[in-house]
Amino acid sequence: MRTNLTHLLGCELPIIQAPMAGGGDTPELVAAVCNAGGMGFIGAAYLTPEQIGTRAAAVRALTSKPFGINLFAPTAPGSNPDIDAAIARLAPYYMELGLSPPAPSSAAVVDVFPAQLAAALECGAAVLSFTFGLLPPNAIAAAKHRSMLLAGTATTIAEALALQDSGVEMIIAQGSEAGGHRATFLGDFAAAQIGTIALVPQIGDAVHVPVIASGGIMDGRGIAAALALGAGAVQLGTAFLTCNEAGIPDAYKQRILETAEDGTRVTRAFSGRAARGIVNRFMLEIEEDGAPIPPFPIQNALTRPLRTAAAQRGRAEFLSLWAGQGLRLARRQSAGALVARLAAEMGATIEALAR
Amino acid sequence: MRTNLTHLLGCELPIIQAPMAGGGDTPELVAAVCNAGGMGFIGAAYLTPEQIGTRAAAVRALTSKPFGINLFAPTAPGSNPDIDAAIARLAPYYMELGLSPPAPSSAAVVDVFPAQLAAALECGAAVLSFTFGLLPPNAIAAAKHRSMLLAGTATTIAEALALQDSGVEMIIAQGSEAGGHRATFLGDFAAAQIGTIALVPQIGDAVHVPVIASGGIMDGRGIAAALALGAGAVQLGTAFLTCNEAGIPDAYKQRILETAEDGTRVTRAFSGRAARGIVNRFMLEIEEDGAPIPPFPIQNALTRPLRTAAAQRGRAEFLSLWAGQGLRLARRQSAGALVARLAAEMGATIEALAR
Repeated sequence: MRTNLTHLLGCELPIIQAPMAGGGDTPELVAAVCNAGGMGFIGAAYLTPEQIGTRAAAVRALTSKPFGINLFAPTAPGSNPDIDAAIARLAPYYMELGLSPPAPSSAAVVDVFPAQLAAALECGAAVLSFTFGLLPPNAIAAAKHRSMLLAGTATTIAEALALQDSGVEMIIAQGSEAGGHRATFLGDFAAAQIGTIALVPQIGDAVHVPVIASGGIMDGRGIAAALALGAGAVQLGTAFLTCNEAGIPDAYKQRILETAEDGTRVTRAFSGRAARGIVNRFMLEIEEDGAPIPPFPIQNALTRPLRTAAAQRGRAEFLSLWAGQGLRLARRQSAGALVARLAAEMGATIEALAR
Repeated sequence: MRTNLTHLLGCELPIIQAPMAGGGDTPELVAAVCNAGGMGFIGAAYLTPEQIGTRAAAVRALTSKPFGINLFAPTAPGSNPDIDAAIARLAPYYMELGLSPPAPSSAAVVDVFPAQLAAALECGAAVLSFTFGLLPPNAIAAAKHRSMLLAGTATTIAEALALQDSGVEMIIAQGSEAGGHRATFLGDFAAAQIGTIALVPQIGDAVHVPVIASGGIMDGRGIAAALALGAGAVQLGTAFLTCNEAGIPDAYKQRILETAEDGTRVTRAFSGRAARGIVNRFMLEIEEDGAPIPPFPIQNALTRPLRTAAAQRGRAEFLSLWAGQGLRLARRQSAGALVARLAAEMGATIEALAR
């Protein structure tokens, strides 16, 4: 199944593995997706420039196919939160794991974007995708200068139009079903939770660049549906998180495989920015008391050591268990086998429709 | 495009006009959908037994094709709300329209279901669909005795399974995009907001009866997508609300045609039960002050005279403007022309996919 977008991307299948900055997208996962005919992405938002180089080199060693890299667009944290209060709120959880709470200095906001961008531009990726906003014009120009394709993420039509105006070659339409961080950057997070089946055709009608559908797509039925809605390709995250190659704790994979479709919610508890994940103790308790949560990336920095320690100890109640609403369709297998299965299911679905 | 479900329903097209208890589904609308090859539904939840008979007779006079009727499953209002406080909260709005606030006695909860059911069973409809829960076993038995098909509405897999166990012949999967009242009857309203693209295949995998997809479907692309997800038919509400035959105030139609995809939200302000509608002044103000809102059907009864007067005067700021998230795809035309257009678009979409 080739579309205009697969021609542009240079891959066989309209199947993109979503970048997963939490560590899910190991070089083995990314390369396996590329080698199977899809397109893998490195979620580089939490990587240092050196790590970006190393990670991309590892992907290039495993595949000669094009791959993508993803960054968070630079955002200003806005308000001036009470860091000491935020640390005090988190201290009991650190204590429960036998750790000291983080120092206030760990929440200092550093603009990592320029150095990440420089590394991303040099890493050999064919596509630079991004979320949380627009890239600065010089970043757009630099990517185009190197013939990298640009893909921005939209949760509303206004965002899609702003991205198109900024010069991106394609738009990722992120439906409300999607796991992980919401891309919303204009307007209200709650209002911008539009389901994929409504969002994709409305964005498609509004823009003239190709659209990649994301959110709630887990199998070949979902892929065929997204193509019917007018998408040129789909982006799947949760479906790849339970693959053998995914670099997340086994306790996290296990939770994905055993949680029902209504077991996720959108929360700011872990990172300070709205994101969809499986409901767990940390999410519930942090939301419950109503204390202010510092904005991203501050809360993210303050909870990171806790999440790292929890991952090492298999304590899923303290992990950000990002996942979308298609949970019951998650399968445990290799990424290459998953891509082949998705392609076969997609073909069979379309054939059955046309009969 | 015939599916197993169109054979069962006895219509040509897998296109169902959603029952719209607010008055959108006039006999002219219902009959036009049936005559064009789809299936129209009378939303009878707010009708008296006499009105059900009259409305169905009017439909039968306009079409010889099968049509459906929809009721709200009986629900207990649970808590014992402070009716006087609720009326005091609404009084300024009544005053603004020059009306006296409703008497506390108007909020008395009467079990209208048994008489409505008796009328629905006699009205000549081929299908009885329902929402808000399960039907009592005697209602299921009575419908089956008359060879009426039963369709229950689910927002989660647990609800779909409960409906299947209760004996329904088909399940309406209501995605989070859907306009109007949420069908949720087990568990939490917020958690049960699953997008259609994720909900339909997960329900389809869990049950053995056919599934009708609803929520965010507005055109042939959405219909083809829903069929790809495994649905046997689709149910569209908002798409029919802007049809010439729809019996809603013109101010309401106008708001649908001019509102963006992120202009709706789920609210309890109008009826006491979660429902998706276009954000307006009444919704915002009632939600804002955080005062308790009595449960359905009490709040619904207390706001009804206000909404009726507002409809007569074209005051959209006091109307419950139920609508789904596909708003930008709404079109003003006759219902018969819409059904023909939907069928043509669906065919073209499937043909393009298979090419």
